[in-house]
Amino acid sequence: MHSPSVKKLIDLFSKFPTVGPRTAARFVFYLLNLPKENTEELMDSIFKLKEKVKLCESCFKSFEAEDGNSKFCEICRDARRDKTTLCVVEKEIDLIPIEKTKKYQGLYFILGGTVSTLKKEDFKKIRINELLERIKNSQIKEIIIALNPTTEGEATALYLERKLKSLSIKTTRLGRGLPVGAELEYADEETLSSALNNRK
Amino acid sequence: MHSPSVKKLIDLFSKFPTVGPRTAARFVFYLLNLPKENTEELMDSIFKLKEKVKLCESCFKSFEAEDGNSKFCEICRDARRDKTTLCVVEKEIDLIPIEKTKKYQGLYFILGGTVSTLKKEDFKKIRINELLERIKNSQIKEIIIALNPTTEGEATALYLERKLKSLSIKTTRLGRGLPVGAELEYADEETLSSALNNRK
Amino acid sequence: MHSPSVKKLIDLFSKFPTVGPRTAARFVFYLLNLPKENTEELMDSIFKLKEKVKLCESCFKSFEAEDGNSKFCEICRDARRDKTTLCVVEKEIDLIPIEKTKKYQGLYFILGGTVSTLKKEDFKKIRINELLERIKNSQIKEIIIALNPTTEGEATALYLERKLKSLSIKTTRLGRGLPVGAELEYADEETLSSALNNRK
Amino acid sequence: MHSPSVKKLIDLFSKFPTVGPRTAARFVFYLLNLPKENTEELMDSIFKLKEKVKLCESCFKSFEAEDGNSKFCEICRDARRDKTTLCVVEKEIDLIPIEKTKKYQGLYFILGGTVSTLKKEDFKKIRINELLERIKNSQIKEIIIALNPTTEGEATALYLERKLKSLSIKTTRLGRGLPVGAELEYADEETLSSALNNRK
Repeated sequence: MHSPSVKKLIDLFSKFPTVGPRTAARFVFYLLNLPKENTEELMDSIFKLKEKVKLCESCFKSFEAEDGNSKFCEICRDARRDKTTLCVVEKEIDLIPIEKTKKYQGLYFILGGTVSTLKKEDFKKIRINELLERIKNSQIKEIIIALNPTTEGEATALYLERKLKSLSIKTTRLGRGLPVGAELEYADEETLSSALNNRK
Repeated sequence: MHSPSVKKLIDLFSKFPTVGPRTAARFVFYLLNLPKENTEELMDSIFKLKEKVKLCESCFKSFEAEDGNSKFCEICRDARRDKTTLCVVEKEIDLIPIEKTKKYQGLYFILGGTVSTLKKEDFKKIRINELLERIKNSQIKEIIIALNPTTEGEATALYLERKLKSLSIKTTRLGRGLPVGAELEYADEETLSSALNNRK
Repeated sequence: MHSPSVKKLIDLFSKFPTVGPRTAARFVFYLLNLPKENTEELMDSIFKLKEKVKLCESCFKSFEAEDGNSKFCEICRDARRDKTTLCVVEKEIDLIPIEKTKKYQGLYFILGGTVSTLKKEDFKKIRINELLERIKNSQIKEIIIALNPTTEGEATALYLERKLKSLSIKTTRLGRGLPVGAELEYADEETLSSALNNRK
Repeated sequence: MHSPSVKKLIDLFSKFPTVGPRTAARFVFYLLNLPKENTEELMDSIFKLKEKVKLCESCFKSFEAEDGNSKFCEICRDARRDKTTLCVVEKEIDLIPIEKTKKYQGLYFILGGTVSTLKKEDFKKIRINELLERIKNSQIKEIIIALNPTTEGEATALYLERKLKSLSIKTTRLGRGLPVGAELEYADEETLSSALNNRK
């Protein structure tokens, strides 16, 4: 049905997160009907993204160096941030809701993934060594492990806690309990147990 | 379309929670096709429910007195339960997940509803006076307000806290935070703020 | 957790169509909180349903005989209905949307179920013999097989067509095609093939 | 939060069909983590799409001219296709399920949109004049108006029928009725009326 150029682009869009072949086809037809200057703007923006945006050497967050020389992101360079607290998140996108709370003033570290206890090769994919390096000779007094309370997130948090134990830095985890809008009737036992324990 | 007896029963089933007229109609056709002995069993069970089950005079939970004389439910009569803690829930069904955690050994009090700050007449519908009466001359040292963290639940909790303040009994609320399986990426700011505050 | 009377009624409500144990529990707590006269009204209505409503001897639709003597439902007795067309539906509830179209003036026959080609014992559960009996010596010139266009409905329709072939009565099926609000983009091939064939 | 290059690309992806700002952000982080050669492949594929793919001058379907000179798509050039039937669809993607049925051998015409009766300016956006031009001096004997049976699709079909009336070419519409897997119980009255009318 589809011509080679269409087919090729459907394949590439199908690899985007949350995109299946049907949505990918819609993307391609959208681009086909777009004026040429708009697709050029898109290509140009992708080019600039890869050219200008780099990863912070301290926390691995992406950032765009205005002068092109900085090695550190705007959060790591911000003098007002608390240098004694480090919040470890799985991926950059998880940092956004934490910043939005305006309750956290410390620094971040982007782990780059989670591991399951079963797949040992996953451990190489996450930035464990980079994290240990980051902590070394730093002012950090507390590490908040802010991974998702899912099976994989929990397994990774446990692994991190063990690794960090020897460093005698305090490690904490995000509090567990009932979220806004929850109904007791439908709450799972583990969440409710946490909510009872953490009552105040 | 429907005959009077069918219509009447559709109306009555439509008042059941979660049931609309279409589902109510399905219930009636289900009963129509049921052998007579099964519908008799159903009517008999409804009759017995109303005959045998009564509300505990202490906590307002339903219970079935074997001897027909007891005024208190099996939880209130249980000598092993901790008489110094009272957990206030909105409705009886909320008590089930708490019991399932096996982490709570105290007693309960079923408030019978929630109030919104706007509708003052709601206050008469919930068991505020009964709760104050229950606490009077009791051994209770802590009252856990285990209402849903919804707008109505929060408003009611606030109201209860004010009412109980003068009694110099400690009041607590269920801990707020991330539930099992949550993803930071989709967490709301209030829940995430609580999760940060309650980290440990 | 639940007392015997509560448990028993949860079991019975769980057998209702679309109802699981959690919803069944909500039904029971609803009844527990209902004034006694309302539960008596419910029991009375179920009693009357089984007492007064009977199945039409011609089409097997439920009906309520005012005089208590009629053997036939209001549709079968209606002199204005077209006696030469018979619409075969799976269950009584399917008759309602057809009546609502106000486009059908003939009579009905309620088959009482569908059969899958794999389960031969199902054939005894549906009213095949009653249908053949109904047609015998009647004025019927067309039988509309109005079964759901699902796998089971199609298998049953095929079986009926074969059974009725020898009687030299015209049999038809409901037209297939795109429903109101459909989008071609998401239409399945079979539906679209029908829509192309039935274009006009 | 986001750097200018990230923000810019989130904005552009947010204009893609079905994509909101949150998904757009996920796309950008996906690209950020992609090896450079993969993003280059993507940009190259978008470039080629716009360079090589053009719209057929007869039916407005996209196609890729191997020799770079052809003005017509592979369907319009296919000698085996029936030149006397023209199927008018709203958008190119609607043509795919029709081709998949393998029941249609005629040609297509992509209208480029639908109109609502209220917004008269929409009429300029769809290819009415191009359609009239296409028909002129052609062998076309039947025009199948294959627009979605939605309010907008119906309004456009009606408008097309009026426009084509004077040309004394037979116009048809896709058949309406129950789709595969439908259940009578939930069918709307209009669909069921069509299904009764189109019974066979």
